[in-house]
Amino acid sequence: MKLNVDLQNHSYPIYIERNTIQKVHEYIPVTRKIAIITDTGVPEKWVNIVKEQCPDSFICTIPQGEPSKCFDQYKNLLEEMISHNMSRKDAIIAVGGGVVGDLAGFVAASYMRGIDFYNIPTTVLSQVDSSVGGKVAIDMGSYKNIVGAFWQPKTVIIDPNVLSTLSLRQQHNGLCEALKMGLILDDHLVSLFEQETIDIDAIITRSIELKRDVVQQDERESNLRKILNFGHTIGHAIESAYGLNTYLHGECVAMGMLFFIEDKTLKQRVLNIYKKLGLPQVPNYDTSTLLEYVTHDKKSSHNTVSTILVEQSGSYIIKELSFKEIQEVLERGPYEE
Amino acid sequence: MKLNVDLQNHSYPIYIERNTIQKVHEYIPVTRKIAIITDTGVPEKWVNIVKEQCPDSFICTIPQGEPSKCFDQYKNLLEEMISHNMSRKDAIIAVGGGVVGDLAGFVAASYMRGIDFYNIPTTVLSQVDSSVGGKVAIDMGSYKNIVGAFWQPKTVIIDPNVLSTLSLRQQHNGLCEALKMGLILDDHLVSLFEQETIDIDAIITRSIELKRDVVQQDERESNLRKILNFGHTIGHAIESAYGLNTYLHGECVAMGMLFFIEDKTLKQRVLNIYKKLGLPQVPNYDTSTLLEYVTHDKKSSHNTVSTILVEQSGSYIIKELSFKEIQEVLERGPYEE
Repeated sequence: MKLNVDLQNHSYPIYIERNTIQKVHEYIPVTRKIAIITDTGVPEKWVNIVKEQCPDSFICTIPQGEPSKCFDQYKNLLEEMISHNMSRKDAIIAVGGGVVGDLAGFVAASYMRGIDFYNIPTTVLSQVDSSVGGKVAIDMGSYKNIVGAFWQPKTVIIDPNVLSTLSLRQQHNGLCEALKMGLILDDHLVSLFEQETIDIDAIITRSIELKRDVVQQDERESNLRKILNFGHTIGHAIESAYGLNTYLHGECVAMGMLFFIEDKTLKQRVLNIYKKLGLPQVPNYDTSTLLEYVTHDKKSSHNTVSTILVEQSGSYIIKELSFKEIQEVLERGPYEE
Repeated sequence: MKLNVDLQNHSYPIYIERNTIQKVHEYIPVTRKIAIITDTGVPEKWVNIVKEQCPDSFICTIPQGEPSKCFDQYKNLLEEMISHNMSRKDAIIAVGGGVVGDLAGFVAASYMRGIDFYNIPTTVLSQVDSSVGGKVAIDMGSYKNIVGAFWQPKTVIIDPNVLSTLSLRQQHNGLCEALKMGLILDDHLVSLFEQETIDIDAIITRSIELKRDVVQQDERESNLRKILNFGHTIGHAIESAYGLNTYLHGECVAMGMLFFIEDKTLKQRVLNIYKKLGLPQVPNYDTSTLLEYVTHDKKSSHNTVSTILVEQSGSYIIKELSFKEIQEVLERGPYEE
């Protein structure tokens, strides 16, 4: 199926369909130089299918994992673009997960002040969420996404077939962001997680529709788009403090959401889904360590943090919490009311 | 006087007036954290006048000169922003010439995916041209402006008083870009250079009006805005090959324009103005060296270069020249017809 993201000057289509990766040449103008950016975790098979459809292309492979979303890789890739004499009319295709998409997107956003960018997400997380929306960035030290741009892709190609090479843990990790979208916006999406067999195609499509609607209403995250940060404030802090080599991003977001689900019955529903997905428990943490990360987080300004709370599945409340209130939430813990 | 740049989502005012530097606090919301980025060539006096009006501000000073428009300085400045805990609601003010404006502007464009940027140009070149238009960038190796963004300032404050501390050579260097604007768009502006005393305030105002009109019609340089590159194709090549420590940017642009003024009488008028401004002669050059730079220039794609020619003062012709034709132009030389 084809969804359109309608934005003033840079609308674009999203194709969600099994086997679309074979049709890249139908959806992307490939008669120009194309840099395919991917990482070592993406099976070569997918990358080669894309490459074969782009006659004048080259592949740049970065190491898998969040540490690649750094200044050095950013600079290396820009140097690659120069050494291949890429012009303003050429294009970058990202084939990978969120790290590849964010990094390749920022290279596309800034090389020659911006060239065409296409995204072929290959993880659940990027298929249900990060490939749509135009947020591209790199990290500096422990500051996630601190440098970047809003740079919309020209086209997003989502092929659920490519998920077949992922481990179950990776797949479930990605589903956490879809669940997040359901909790704040659409109880029907939450209920898709409660069915006996999880229909991943249905979850991807519904998530992307919801994400698309939010992005259309608020491209540059001036307001509404902040709701997508549900679970991320404390989630990012857990990821930064305890996540390295231990937890995946979606797992941390899942942990972060628990702190701000304000209804007992709903929390139990969510915990049942977590169990089904085999998500890890929130680790023992040091409140002041997490608080330190929260207060340094980029969404915080002055002494409050704009926080998303959920009382009823499919709806949200935005509340400015003081650092003191965040501290109380942390002291209370994720499993208490 | 106040000019407005009307752009879809990010219109902004330009104030052109003597003593406006004293009124920064009237034109910029200063009740937030402000990073003032400047260079060692800007007299402290101007920087301090700005700082005194911003109660919660800090100064970042980069070394004067084009080499500062590099990746290392870019990264350093981003780290400064982080270490000062700059949030999305804070702002950057550039106080300096084009190098400072381009570098500070790119930091503002990319820090947290974009924060408010204000520009207080302190050189003729930046006052007549580069401070308006939103082109921000850094260089990589010999590739000028290869990485950057289109990021419009929130306000530009032009105070001709600050030019008093510049050498005559620096002032005349800057006037070259204004003359360029006249040659392609407005013979009246060219004639301002032929008066007995040069009225710099009038030249700045007219140049900025013209630049504003072009930017309004073509924000992202898809077409019309390319005309502002008049003189730059060969000018950049001369600057890269022979300019280091020898010629200033405007001087190189002036040299570059000569190659593409197609009328004998007009060329003589222009040479008279160059004499009046004391501009240097085009150096002896090696055609293949310059050609190499031209073909690597970012505006070139495939085997032609989009070139601006002027036959009649105040008007332009756009022509795709093959590399071979550029070579012939270089072999003919700047002073021949």
